[in-house]
Amino acid sequence: MPLQARIEAILIADDPATFVTRELERVELQFGGIEGDRHFGILAKANVRQPMYKRGQEIMNRRQLSIVSVEELQGIAERIGVKEIQPAWLGANIVISGVPELTKLPMGIRMMLPSGGGLVCEGENEPCSGPGRIIAEHYQDSLLTKLFIQKAQQARGIVAYVERPGELKVGDLVQIYN
Amino acid sequence: MPLQARIEAILIADDPATFVTRELERVELQFGGIEGDRHFGILAKANVRQPMYKRGQEIMNRRQLSIVSVEELQGIAERIGVKEIQPAWLGANIVISGVPELTKLPMGIRMMLPSGGGLVCEGENEPCSGPGRIIAEHYQDSLLTKLFIQKAQQARGIVAYVERPGELKVGDLVQIYN
Repeated sequence: MPLQARIEAILIADDPATFVTRELERVELQFGGIEGDRHFGILAKANVRQPMYKRGQEIMNRRQLSIVSVEELQGIAERIGVKEIQPAWLGANIVISGVPELTKLPMGIRMMLPSGGGLVCEGENEPCSGPGRIIAEHYQDSLLTKLFIQKAQQARGIVAYVERPGELKVGDLVQIYN
Repeated sequence: MPLQARIEAILIADDPATFVTRELERVELQFGGIEGDRHFGILAKANVRQPMYKRGQEIMNRRQLSIVSVEELQGIAERIGVKEIQPAWLGANIVISGVPELTKLPMGIRMMLPSGGGLVCEGENEPCSGPGRIIAEHYQDSLLTKLFIQKAQQARGIVAYVERPGELKVGDLVQIYN
């Protein structure tokens, strides 16, 4: 039986000045992700996350979309002692509910959309300091940056790429399976 | 420590009449795989291996390259009682030695080439009847088709895609790691 998740929010990082995302009601996913988003592209430039390549070399883009779960974000918020962590602060593109352990989904797992599109999980999105700093700024507490990195391990969601394009809307039910 | 493998052969399926491959001394891997090979392409058409899509729909190509190991092919040959299984009969593109359990490598594992190129493992290439029939023809024994499918489980190699282009030559040593 596939797991079922509900799409709670869709977000885009289309302000070149920040990775923080803003909400959309729907999106037409393309090969490469969300057009206009800073992570959009079938190809991407290697960075610190791919130390086996020289920085800036072109590689296939396995990190087109950041997906987070309502349940996991609430868990992180509780562990670092704040009311909430907004998905936009993490640069998330898709927020789902119904999959409490989203971050543990293995690589290669598919998320099938009602439109017929499909995403492929590329594994855990390891917490880094950028979102930690946004959270720290919001709550005016500089200790939260490091605390976020510690307490968000295995809970900060996954990255994914678009295997087949298709529409995605808030409220969609998606099926997760191998 | 990364695993190390040696490239024993490089093969291309460039005869439209068959999936059987022929040997090359070297190849310039591209985004999409081996140019001219029947599985070349950043995109591919969905087939029986992707039943969640309609047949013929365009999807990202996760099956650009078929990689097999000398040790595993010898193991299959012994289990089905034949002298050898030639990689070309399976439509293999890359033959390696030094990784006896190649097929168990998880999705997402990288193979780094001396040229700076990189491949990503997309998991087990599940045995199907096509190669079984070629083996059966070669040894004039029709029972071998089914026997191959049974005995090649978890030993028929992996599929992979090109994450970063680069040259690959027979004799290259490649590093396998997460």
